[in-house]
Amino acid sequence: MSNLPERVTLVEVGPRDGLQNEAARLSTETKVTLVELLAEAGLSRIETGSFVSPKWVPQMADSAQVFTKIRRRPGVSYSALTPNMKGFEAALAAGTDEVAIFGAASEHFSQKNINCSIEESLARFAPICEAAQTAGIKVRGYVSCVLGCPYEGDVAAESVARVAKSMAEMGCYEISLGDTIGTGTALKTAAMLQAVIAVVPAKQLAVHFHDTYGQALTNIYVALSQGISVIDSAIAGLGGCPYAKGASGNVATEDVLYMLNGMGIHTGISMDKLLDATRFISKALERKPLSKAANALMG
Amino acid sequence: MSNLPERVTLVEVGPRDGLQNEAARLSTETKVTLVELLAEAGLSRIETGSFVSPKWVPQMADSAQVFTKIRRRPGVSYSALTPNMKGFEAALAAGTDEVAIFGAASEHFSQKNINCSIEESLARFAPICEAAQTAGIKVRGYVSCVLGCPYEGDVAAESVARVAKSMAEMGCYEISLGDTIGTGTALKTAAMLQAVIAVVPAKQLAVHFHDTYGQALTNIYVALSQGISVIDSAIAGLGGCPYAKGASGNVATEDVLYMLNGMGIHTGISMDKLLDATRFISKALERKPLSKAANALMG
Repeated sequence: MSNLPERVTLVEVGPRDGLQNEAARLSTETKVTLVELLAEAGLSRIETGSFVSPKWVPQMADSAQVFTKIRRRPGVSYSALTPNMKGFEAALAAGTDEVAIFGAASEHFSQKNINCSIEESLARFAPICEAAQTAGIKVRGYVSCVLGCPYEGDVAAESVARVAKSMAEMGCYEISLGDTIGTGTALKTAAMLQAVIAVVPAKQLAVHFHDTYGQALTNIYVALSQGISVIDSAIAGLGGCPYAKGASGNVATEDVLYMLNGMGIHTGISMDKLLDATRFISKALERKPLSKAANALMG
Repeated sequence: MSNLPERVTLVEVGPRDGLQNEAARLSTETKVTLVELLAEAGLSRIETGSFVSPKWVPQMADSAQVFTKIRRRPGVSYSALTPNMKGFEAALAAGTDEVAIFGAASEHFSQKNINCSIEESLARFAPICEAAQTAGIKVRGYVSCVLGCPYEGDVAAESVARVAKSMAEMGCYEISLGDTIGTGTALKTAAMLQAVIAVVPAKQLAVHFHDTYGQALTNIYVALSQGISVIDSAIAGLGGCPYAKGASGNVATEDVLYMLNGMGIHTGISMDKLLDATRFISKALERKPLSKAANALMG
């Protein structure tokens, strides 16, 4: 446990990865308030929207308005997903602080999710990275299916390492490794991370776990033990992936924060204020949060 | 991770710790069928009932009938909680294979839960251990509040170690360390276990986590890493503790099994057959299981 970081950054993905997979359509105002509450709680990185075709992801059709309307908190980075140059340009115009590209470690999933091979997707991302560099905007790279694919089953750690390395070489300042279908368990997580850390330093990596089988927090603990200090999570455990069979929501920010607080790891986030965001979004969605810590703390 | 066991024994506590804390009253027949389904799934240790005053725990009033009616599967140990000699004698008459005594690591909780000090409780358990030895029956010792007390807050690891050592000296073949209110996190779990392992060998210990704040599976992983190979869990995440504010159910057997299967650790349990028990008890209680793995696997 000697590698445990003293400080961890949580990347809040609820407003994007979370809400894009909720059946309910929320108003732009609701999204704006959610993002503002998250920033007030101390989250310094918030994935705020996605610039993709509204035909594919109607929940994110108003991302530009969300970016325009949010009251920006100093020191907070508001990011957006940008699958192509058109999306990147729209994100730039809307004033995003950071953009993200997303590829997969599984060929089959890449085809199903973004309609091209892994190689083609990387070729598509390269000009976005170049344009972002010119514009002075940081690019995050997502790798999905790092611990399993809904179509192929097991995914080789070497495939994950290869895609992560390509993204790093392309200029991504950070690579987020996503267990899209939540089938990862502790030792497989450890082995996958070791393979990736051999080609991309741990300080350049983030982890992104879905909690489909209840394994997310344990896998995050394993990642922390390997020196990874950036964790993706979603308020109230929002989200999921409509293209991944059996996928459920992201690991809940409240549960991750509860663990980190208990471990004495600094995050800069106030649990009390975070629960204001939990209450707000749970009321908007008319359901209880998918976070055990939130439910227990809110009584 | 070098201490990870190759084989783990799950102690199923759903029929006792689980059901005694459910509001619904189930018929004796339902309890019998649940225990039989659990044994058929491959669980080799099943906490089947409790011989306490029905005034305090009405849900367990028919434990003797449950023990009498279950079709015993060879190689399976059916155990019961016995707080005093009267309970022990009733358990013996009902044909239990193993009994359990339960103390606390927190004075305040001991007073509230069993109406006596820790010392008094240990003095009360001693004759049970002697009688069990004479009868050739194994005794398990439970220590509650090992990672927090609803009245006192933090609990010193030394208190846990002291009670565990007393129980071991008294003749308990195994000590189960219970995070009754689920507030434990990874590093505190590791520190507590280290303190206990210094006085009672890891092979004589079990862990018993409630999942109130979503931390149970991670803490179990920490326990495995310290060489502990006996894990308490409850089918469908049944249970909780009515005397512990904010307590929710036990960690779900299905989630623990999913992790162990993924780690290649042998348990002898069939997930498919276990889910038969999950379906059965969920239908009886008219609610979805509190297990993410079960919900995902049952579709």
